[in-house]
Order: sequence, then C-alpha cells, then structure tokens
Amino acid sequence: MTETIDLNADLGEGAGPGRLATDAAILPLVSSANIACGAHAGDPLLMAEVLTLARRHGVTPGAHPGYADRTGFGRRELAASGAEVVVEVLAQVGALHALGRHAGHPVRYLKPHGALYHRLGSDQETARSLAIALVGLWPDLIVLTAGAGAFAREAVSAGLTVAREAFLDRGYQSDGTLVPRGHAGALLHDPAAVADRAERIACDRTVDTVEGTRIPLEADSLCVHGDGPAAVALLEAVRTRFDQRGIAVASFVSSAGSLP
Amino acid sequence: MTETIDLNADLGEGAGPGRLATDAAILPLVSSANIACGAHAGDPLLMAEVLTLARRHGVTPGAHPGYADRTGFGRRELAASGAEVVVEVLAQVGALHALGRHAGHPVRYLKPHGALYHRLGSDQETARSLAIALVGLWPDLIVLTAGAGAFAREAVSAGLTVAREAFLDRGYQSDGTLVPRGHAGALLHDPAAVADRAERIACDRTVDTVEGTRIPLEADSLCVHGDGPAAVALLEAVRTRFDQRGIAVASFVSSAGSLP
Amino acid sequence: MTETIDLNADLGEGAGPGRLATDAAILPLVSSANIACGAHAGDPLLMAEVLTLARRHGVTPGAHPGYADRTGFGRRELAASGAEVVVEVLAQVGALHALGRHAGHPVRYLKPHGALYHRLGSDQETARSLAIALVGLWPDLIVLTAGAGAFAREAVSAGLTVAREAFLDRGYQSDGTLVPRGHAGALLHDPAAVADRAERIACDRTVDTVEGTRIPLEADSLCVHGDGPAAVALLEAVRTRFDQRGIAVASFVSSAGSLP
Amino acid sequence: MTETIDLNADLGEGAGPGRLATDAAILPLVSSANIACGAHAGDPLLMAEVLTLARRHGVTPGAHPGYADRTGFGRRELAASGAEVVVEVLAQVGALHALGRHAGHPVRYLKPHGALYHRLGSDQETARSLAIALVGLWPDLIVLTAGAGAFAREAVSAGLTVAREAFLDRGYQSDGTLVPRGHAGALLHDPAAVADRAERIACDRTVDTVEGTRIPLEADSLCVHGDGPAAVALLEAVRTRFDQRGIAVASFVSSAGSLP
Repeated sequence: MTETIDLNADLGEGAGPGRLATDAAILPLVSSANIACGAHAGDPLLMAEVLTLARRHGVTPGAHPGYADRTGFGRRELAASGAEVVVEVLAQVGALHALGRHAGHPVRYLKPHGALYHRLGSDQETARSLAIALVGLWPDLIVLTAGAGAFAREAVSAGLTVAREAFLDRGYQSDGTLVPRGHAGALLHDPAAVADRAERIACDRTVDTVEGTRIPLEADSLCVHGDGPAAVALLEAVRTRFDQRGIAVASFVSSAGSLP
Repeated sequence: MTETIDLNADLGEGAGPGRLATDAAILPLVSSANIACGAHAGDPLLMAEVLTLARRHGVTPGAHPGYADRTGFGRRELAASGAEVVVEVLAQVGALHALGRHAGHPVRYLKPHGALYHRLGSDQETARSLAIALVGLWPDLIVLTAGAGAFAREAVSAGLTVAREAFLDRGYQSDGTLVPRGHAGALLHDPAAVADRAERIACDRTVDTVEGTRIPLEADSLCVHGDGPAAVALLEAVRTRFDQRGIAVASFVSSAGSLP
Repeated sequence: MTETIDLNADLGEGAGPGRLATDAAILPLVSSANIACGAHAGDPLLMAEVLTLARRHGVTPGAHPGYADRTGFGRRELAASGAEVVVEVLAQVGALHALGRHAGHPVRYLKPHGALYHRLGSDQETARSLAIALVGLWPDLIVLTAGAGAFAREAVSAGLTVAREAFLDRGYQSDGTLVPRGHAGALLHDPAAVADRAERIACDRTVDTVEGTRIPLEADSLCVHGDGPAAVALLEAVRTRFDQRGIAVASFVSSAGSLP
Repeated sequence: MTETIDLNADLGEGAGPGRLATDAAILPLVSSANIACGAHAGDPLLMAEVLTLARRHGVTPGAHPGYADRTGFGRRELAASGAEVVVEVLAQVGALHALGRHAGHPVRYLKPHGALYHRLGSDQETARSLAIALVGLWPDLIVLTAGAGAFAREAVSAGLTVAREAFLDRGYQSDGTLVPRGHAGALLHDPAAVADRAERIACDRTVDTVEGTRIPLEADSLCVHGDGPAAVALLEAVRTRFDQRGIAVASFVSSAGSLP
C-alpha cells in the first residue's frame, strides 16, 4: 500500500525582478500552492502569473489571505474586529477565485497567513464568523490549517471540509503545540532532519518533540516555511526521501471527501 | 404610460471620518450604485458598508473598477497591457462580488471608472478581451457604459447585456461625443439645466448640444458626477422634476432583458 | 490681557471627489493643521494640496503620522515593534517635511494619529525611542500631544518642545483621562457645550468632568474631532465664542519657546 | 595610473521571506545602492534594513523613486502631470532621506526608476521642474542618470551635480541610444561579454554597438539590471575582471566635485 500526502508552500509573495524565481523552483516540488491575495503580499498580476504556473505544474491553488499589512508581511497582529476580518478575507478570496476561474484553474482551498493564521487558531468567535461566511459563499472550499485550533473546529461545525497540516521545519512540543519562534528548537534547518520528520508523519502519523517524546500527529498536508532558497533545499530533501520510500505526493483535494 | 429610467452614481470612493456622509445622501436619490473596488478608491470594509447601505435603500449594486492608482484617483491613463487590465478588473469585480453575495445584495453590473472608462471606450482589443473574460465568469453581469464606445460593442458581441448611460452634467457635441474637460460648456452646474437635460433624455430621447442642435440620445441610465455635495444638489433637482413629470426611477436591471 | 490659544484639526485624510471640501471649510477656523502623511490616509498630491491651502490661510502645518493601515484608518492597534514604529514615523514625517519645504511652508510640529497616538501615550519605551530619533533629525520639531502621557514626558526628556492639547468634544474624567469611546459622556455633540469647554480651558485652565467635578487642565492647543461637517459646526461655535470673549487663536509655535 | 569607476544596482525592491537575500549578495559587489522609496517597491522597514546593510558594506545610498505603481513595478508609463511627478519624487526622497540620516548613512544621490527614468530622459519640462525642486531642497544631491537625456541637462542647468551611468547588460546603438527591449541585441546575458563591456567603458571610454561600431561613452557609474541571481553573476564577472586589470570600484560621490 502506498502512502500519499500533500505538500504545500506559500507562493506569490515576492516582488520586483525575479519575484517568480523561487516560486518557479518550488512548484515542481509541491502539490498545493497557497497564493497570496494582494493584501499582505501579491497583486492581481502576480496572482494570475502564479495561477498559470501552478496549472502548468498540476499544483492545486489555494487562497492565502492575510492582514492588509504589507510592511509587516501580515505577520503583525492587528486589532481588526471579527466582522472586519470576515470582509477582508472574503474580498481577498473573491479576487483570487475570479482569477482562478479565468485561468481555468479554480481555487480549491483556503489557508490563512501569518498573524491571521494564529488568530484564527485561538479566536473562536472570529473563526466561527469566518467559517459561516465561507460556507455561505463557497461551500466546497476546503480549509487548510492546524488540526487542533479553533478554525479547524469551527470550519467543520459550519460544514466545510478541513485538511490538517503539519510543519516540517518547526519544533513540536509534547502537547502538540509548536515551539514558539525565538526559543531553542523552534526551527529545523537540516534537510535530513526535515526529511525524517516528513517520513515519520506520512508513514507513522507521529512526530518527535523537543522534549524527546514521540506523539501522534495526523496530517493531510505538510508545510515548509523558510525563505525561498532554503525552502527549495528542504523540499528537495523531502521529495528525494519520499521517492526512496515510495511515498506519493498528491493534493488533499482528491481525497478530501473522506475527511471528517 | 410612465417613463422609467435609471440614475447611477459613484460611491464608496471617500476616506477618513465622514467618508460615508455623501454616499448616505446620494443613495436615497439613485437606483444604481457604482461601488469602487479597492483599487482607485475604497477597501473591503468600505465596500461592505456601502453594499449594506445600498441594500437598505433598494439600490442595485454594481462594480466600479479602475486603475490601481489611488494617488491619481484612477483618472490618469496607465500603460497597462490589455491582459493586465483584464486581471486587474477581474480581481476587483471578484472581490466586490464576494462581498455582495455575503451582504445578500449581489453585484449586478459593472461600470468602469475614470481613465479605464475612457480607454475601454476606444481600445477595442482590450475591450474585447475584457468582455470575453467577463462573460466567461459572470454571464449575467450587465455592462453599464456609453452606448457609442468600443466596450459597449464588444460586450454585446461577447454576449453580455449592455445598459447605455448618458451624462447629466457634461456638455454634448453634435456628433454625440462629450465636450472635453477644460473646454467651454464641458460641465453643467445649474440644477435647473441638469433637470431639463434629464427630462429631455428620459422623455424625448434627445439631448441639446453646445452648438445649439438637438440630437437623439438613447440611454438606460443617467449619471451625475461632480464632488459629493454638488452631486446631491443636482440629483435632488432631477428627482423633483421627475416627480412633477411622473417619470419613474428604477434600476435598468429589471428591464435589462429587453436590451439588444 | 488677551488670552491666546491654538486650535488644531486633522486634515488631508479624505479621498475622491470633494476630498478637500471639508479641509477647505476647516482651515479658516484653525491655527494648526495636522496633515496625514500617506500611511493611514493621504498621498503626496493631497499632502501638497493641503500644505498650499494651509499656507494661504496662515495655518501652521504639522505632521500627522499613523499606522500604515488605510482600511482601518490607523485606528486599530498594530503589533509593530518600537523600532518599526520609529522608521515608519520618520519616513512619514520625512515625506511631509520635504513637501513643506517645497511649498515654502515648513512642517513645525508632529502629532501622532489614532492608535499610534494612544500607544505613544502609554508605551514608554517606544515613546522614548521615537523622541530620541526625532530630536536627532529635527531638533526644532514640536510634539503636540496629551500633556499627561509617555510621549510628552519622553519628548521633553529628549530635548524636544512639547505643546499640550485638550479635546473639545471628548468627555473628561476626574483623574484627567478621557471617557473611553462607547461609554456615556464620551463625546460632546452640542456646539454650545463645546464652546463652553473651549472658553473654560482657555481662560480658567479647567475642565468640567462627567462626574460633575472641575479639574485643572493646562493646554496649548484645542482639538476637535468628529466627521467633517460636524467638526466645522463645532469649530464655528468656538470661534464665535472666542470672538465674543476676546480670546485670540494663534499657533503654539510662536509661543513655543516658553514651554517647559 | 589606476582607473576608478562606480558600480550601481537597484536594491530594496523585493518582498516576502528572503526579500533581502539578493540585496545581501549584491551589496559586496557594488559601490552605490539605488534604494526603492516605498512607491513602486519597498516600505519604510525595508528601506531602513537596506540602509543598514549598505552602511555595513560601505556602499553609498541613493534614492530610487518611481511611479506609485506597485503592481506594474513602476515600469508602466503613467499620465501624471509634471507637478504631480515633482511632489511624488520629493515625498519619496524625503522619506528615504530621513531614514538615511537616522541610520547614520545619508542619501547622497538620486536615480529615477523604470518608466519615470525614461520619461525624465525626454520630458524636458518635467525634468526641469524636478531639477529645480531638488536643488531647492537638497543642493548637494547628485543626480545619477544617462548622460545624454533631458534630466542630466536640466539637473546641470539647475546647479546639481550629475553622475553619468552606462548599462552593462543593454545593447547600444551607433547613435548612443539603447536597443529597445524586445529587439535583437537588447540584452546581454553573457558574463564575459558584460565584463568586456565594463572594462572597455572604464578604460577606453568606448562601447561596442549592435551595428558593430565602437562609439565614445563617458560614464561615472556602471549599472547592471536583470533579476536578482543573474545580476549577481554578472557583477561577479565584472569584479573579477576589474581585479585582473587593476580597475578600482568606488562611489562617484568622492570624485563628484570634478564633474561638469
């Protein structure tokens, strides 16, 4: 029996000359593309270009909305109300959705970005409002997010399908949460360690923690962060390992119907 | 028999405290709201607020996309390629479309803004590309534009319904074109003259020109420009005249099916 | 002996047609113009236009920097680091400073906007970093802010002159702080009450609180908020009262040398 | 006798993770950094980061203003009036100027970007207005631009110092103009050819044209374009060649006093 798992990465977040260079190197290595929607990064032209590239590589496009904080790259928390978050996200997804249909490569999922990702993991009221709004507009849209947070729970409650993601280059703690950035073990830089991590999640449904324990971790998709060049190196290590072990990489959309 | 015609105005273009003050004064006077889509003006919150106000007043919402030139308010020509115009417009309409569905008040039409409006009136290739893209995504979307330009022709060719607009506060020349801004007679400021103009177009399907001639002018919708307060005064004069003459104001959407 | 006090208002925050209408109505009524610097509102063209208008009216221009959150109008707290706040503010002031010199009407003071105003009132470390940075670049720049907060203290410590402002349309509590927005008495809407308030601060150096007490309040400048049209009405009431009482309105810059 | 020439590159134009990666690779290879000022690219944080990196590498910082067209990366012509161009550029330079002083690494020159560069090369009236405005605010600011265009002439007339640049990776025609993009020979990709070009300009003050002629070309600075990684490769080839030939690389600022 062949194990199959999804690999996702954030794309369409660059600017200037060569803004597509990293994206073009990552796309052959992943099965899902989280495309910035013009708020924390990106613009309609870049969105359209990434959609076209993603289609060429058979990579499933997803919306990657964030706070409209370009200077802070959407990584700074912003005191927006829940209602403000909802309209901000709907506008961003709506824009990418239109471009995806125009490109013949429709958006299939949504993964929030940066500070918004973290907020939706714990702000239950906003997560619920957003999930209800999303199901009202795009009932088939899949939510890609950490399986343990508020957004996953509320999305399921609202009737959306959820794909759970794990992080290949972030340290895990024994309670299943991530080691906060800035703490020892927060980031994995070694390609071999990342490949080990990927293989263990895909095959054993477990992850090793910074405390030395091994805990269960169910994931439909694996995410690599890091700046562009580093992300490419880590993804290459993972793909090589997957080839050796016979692990297939494929979008979670095809198997999404079986998700809870 | 009662004459019926649409009145449209540009909304959601303000900022800062009181940004909705003029919009709130205009909405009771019109039947169609051209809502800026976050590029030349507006943002998701303002778009959502205007949609909610428009619904409350029974005013039909339309997308009002423009060049992403906030400093120039979308009034400066920009050397964007036709393909760039298409993705810029689709992203803007897609964003408003999502917010309109969320607000329970779906976008029904599109009217381009400023320099983009003028470009689409004469740049046939871009007009065609845009019309084809629009019909592919939103086949029921109505295009509101000058009846004589390239965009109207290409929209009809592509299978879209077109609503033709006339300008209540711009001077017309005998060939049916507008007196260029900056020339004598380019702008009408007098409420009584604007009301005369409106009545003549609605009832006689004619307009008086700066040369003193009277020419035929078919219009489904009448537009008033000008800054906020002036627009309100002109619209009030038009509505008073229409009440006196028994001319009804209603969205062109209801009667759109009968358009060519 | 004639009492003299400054009146300040926020300008250059509009957009779209008629974006200068309110500014043009406010400028004849104030002595200091807080000009938005292109981040929470405004852009280089609007900044230049407002500077030109301010010069024509003899109104002293000040920089009004805010968080680069246009959608939220700079009123939402943003988790920017202190160092990020410093470079954001320096860039905004630098831009307006250049335009002021070009217009022959140099920027003389700085008043922070919205959420940044509130943050600098209590975040001592950021207030200190900003004050030190400002004195390094523009040692003659005056800081206009609430006299009781961290920014006023740190600005004085850094060697900057501080002008203290009071709010004409906000409720005060007995401890000298403002009634939070949303609470009873937070806002004064009545022109007569605002004029009473202005007269008392200018002549008696006291203010009446929502608890019915009267407390001392030293202020070099009086600020009116509110949306555009309301601000004009309140300012007109204040100016009429000042004319009756022989209170002069003049920029704090001329008398700034005597400030602590 | 040692030949000395400047090398300049555009920096601070990226976004997202790794946005400084290319800049960090280019800075050790050049002597002048054209830093985007937040309009066509960049933001206050990135500007401050690049200034700090430039100081560390002893690279002279210059302002690189462009049209506020982020989607088009400032490469699309925009119908801004001359007066609009002036205030747009002054605001951008003012912002970087403040950050440069704050970083202890003041801005010394200005090189326009993209479509604005080309416009200023031929739009004499706008070039004159801008030059006069610049000399009024920053009389010691050097203008870096093509020696043959309107901006160079008007800057000299206004009393500014001009540094003339040549392009290492663009084809030249016998009349001294560049081969238009899209035509055969418009771009040089071969590092050896670029190194040949650089050596010939530095030592012989000549350049080979696409027609096979050799024409005189006086330049104080050499510019390499191209996307990030390609620019690094070309610059490395040039530096290796310069080391072999004993050609020194140094900012034109030190020798600027001797320019016409």
